[in-house]
Amino acid sequence: MSRAAIIGGGVIGGGWAARFLLNGWDVAVFDPDPEAARKIGAVLDNARRALPALYDRALPSEGGLSYCPDLAEAVAGADWVQESVPERLELKHRVLAQIMAAAPEGAIIGSSTSGFKPSQLNAEGARAIVAHPFNPVYLLPLVELVGAPEVCARAADTLRALGMFPLTLRKEIDAHIADRLLEAVWRESLWLVRDGIATTEEIDEAIRMGFGLRWAQMGLFETYRIAGGEAGMRHFLDQFGPALQWPWTRLTDVPDYDDALVALIAGQSDAQSGHMGIRDLERLRDDNLVAILRALKQSGSGAGGVVAAHEAALPES
Amino acid sequence: MSRAAIIGGGVIGGGWAARFLLNGWDVAVFDPDPEAARKIGAVLDNARRALPALYDRALPSEGGLSYCPDLAEAVAGADWVQESVPERLELKHRVLAQIMAAAPEGAIIGSSTSGFKPSQLNAEGARAIVAHPFNPVYLLPLVELVGAPEVCARAADTLRALGMFPLTLRKEIDAHIADRLLEAVWRESLWLVRDGIATTEEIDEAIRMGFGLRWAQMGLFETYRIAGGEAGMRHFLDQFGPALQWPWTRLTDVPDYDDALVALIAGQSDAQSGHMGIRDLERLRDDNLVAILRALKQSGSGAGGVVAAHEAALPES
Repeated sequence: MSRAAIIGGGVIGGGWAARFLLNGWDVAVFDPDPEAARKIGAVLDNARRALPALYDRALPSEGGLSYCPDLAEAVAGADWVQESVPERLELKHRVLAQIMAAAPEGAIIGSSTSGFKPSQLNAEGARAIVAHPFNPVYLLPLVELVGAPEVCARAADTLRALGMFPLTLRKEIDAHIADRLLEAVWRESLWLVRDGIATTEEIDEAIRMGFGLRWAQMGLFETYRIAGGEAGMRHFLDQFGPALQWPWTRLTDVPDYDDALVALIAGQSDAQSGHMGIRDLERLRDDNLVAILRALKQSGSGAGGVVAAHEAALPES
Repeated sequence: MSRAAIIGGGVIGGGWAARFLLNGWDVAVFDPDPEAARKIGAVLDNARRALPALYDRALPSEGGLSYCPDLAEAVAGADWVQESVPERLELKHRVLAQIMAAAPEGAIIGSSTSGFKPSQLNAEGARAIVAHPFNPVYLLPLVELVGAPEVCARAADTLRALGMFPLTLRKEIDAHIADRLLEAVWRESLWLVRDGIATTEEIDEAIRMGFGLRWAQMGLFETYRIAGGEAGMRHFLDQFGPALQWPWTRLTDVPDYDDALVALIAGQSDAQSGHMGIRDLERLRDDNLVAILRALKQSGSGAGGVVAAHEAALPES
C-alpha cells in the first residue's frame, strides 16, 4: 500500500489525486481553499466515470482519501508528494520548503509546474523533480520528468504502474517540451483571432478535422515521414524546409495581450461553447478520450499501447 | 454522374482521386510522371482498404479512372478540376492557364496549394479557389476553401457530399489557417532538435501521449475553456496570458535550415521509424485513423460527426 500527498487541489492536483486513488493508493490532500473538497470531488466523479472504462479488467480497490488541515500532516509518511500550487516561483519555494521539512527522506517530490526548471524550483535547497502532467490527468498518459536522473528513474517506474507514460528530458528547459509546442500554437492562434482571420471555433475545427487526428496517434515527425512518400523524411525536408524562411507566421512578433484581445477571445469562446456547462464539456471530452484510447488499444499504437500494458498488469478478474 | 480532373498525381493528387472515385465520381488524371499510375495505384489501394471501413453502409460503386496523356483531355467535361502540382508559383500559373483554356465554363477549379493565396494563384487571369486538403485526403475531412464566395459555397456543397468538412476562410492569408499552426509547431520542434533538448521520437511522444489526444476531438480553445475550470475561458486567459511575454519559445528566431540540421532530423527519424517501410506506416496510420473516426462517430464529436452525417446520406443496403 502506497501513499501520495497532493499539495494544491485544483484541476491538476485533483487529477493527480484521482490517478493515485483509482490505482489503489491512499491519498492525503492539503489545500487551504475551503472549496477544495468540493472541487476535488467533482474531478473524482469524472475520473471514476472515465478511467475504469479504459480497461476490460478491474482496477484495484480505491485507496483512502483524506483532507488534511495542514501540509505537514498530509506529507507525513508519503511515498510521493505532488505539488500543484499556482505558477509563482516564490510560492513554489515556500511550499517546497515546507514539504522538505515534513516529507520522509526517500519520498519523491514532484512539481506539476508547466514552466519552471528544477534548478529554479530547487534554488533554495529543495530536491524536487518536475513531474508535469496533462489535463485530464486521470486519462492522458503523458508526464514530463525533469531533474535528478535516479529520482526520475524511480518516478518513471511508479508512473508506469499508474498507467502513465513518463517522458524524461535529458536537459532542463523553460516549459519543458509539450508546452513549448502548445505555446507556439497558442501564440499563432492569438494572431489569427486578433487579425480577424479566424474565430476560436474555426481554429478548433481546423485542428480537429485535420492534423489533430494525425497527432493523436503518430505525432509530427512520423506523420511527415509518411508525407514525404516513398522518398521519406529527407524528401519531405527538401520540399518543405525552405518554407521556414517564408512569411507564413507572425511568430517573430509577440501579440499585445490586452483587454480587447481577452474580450474578443472570451466572447468567441462563449459563442462557440457557452451552450454547454463546464461539467458537460468535461464529460464530452472524457467520453471522446476514452473512445479514442480504447480504439488505439486495439492497434497498440501510442497511448493505446500504454493502456494495453497497464491492463495486462492488472489481475484477471 | 460527376467527373473530376486530377492535375498532378502525387500523394495529395492521388488522395483526391481516391476521395472522388470511392464516392462514385469518374476521375481523369493528368501527370507527366511515367510512374504516376503506379503511385496513384498505391494510394488507391490504401484508400480502398480504409475509407469503406468508416461506414456501416456501402459507398456508391466506384467511378471510372482514366489516365490522360494531355491536360486538356483530362479537363474536358470536368465538374471539378483539382490542381496538385509542386508548390512553385510560376508552375501553378502555367498549369492554371492550361486548365482555364480547356475546362468547362462552370467547373470548379481548386488548388491544393498549402501556401499561396487566391490573389497570387489568379494573378494571370485564372479563376481558381484554394481547396487545401490534408494527408491522407481519403480519410481526413478538412478542406480549407479560400476565394470567390459563390464558388466556395458550391465547392462546400460538393465536399460535404464527399464526406469532407469544408472550412471557408473569410480572408485570404499566406498558408491559410492549419498550416500556420503546423508551421509554428514545426519551427519550435526544429529548435528543440537542434538544441539537443529532444529527439524526433521524443517530440512525437510528447504530442501523441498528451495534447494530440485532446486535439483529435476538441481543438485548442474549447480544451482550454475546460482547463479554466468553473471560471471558464476568462480565468484561463488571466492565468496563462502573461506567459506570452516569457522566454518560453525560440519562435522569434528562425533556425538556420542547413545540411547539419537536415542530417540530424533525417537520422533521428530513421532511428525512430526506419524499421517500418512507408507502406507499413501508411497502413498503421490509416488503421488508427479509421479506429479513431469510428470511435468519434459514436459521440458525433468533431470529425466523427462528419462521418456520421455522410453515412446517413448513403442509401441503406
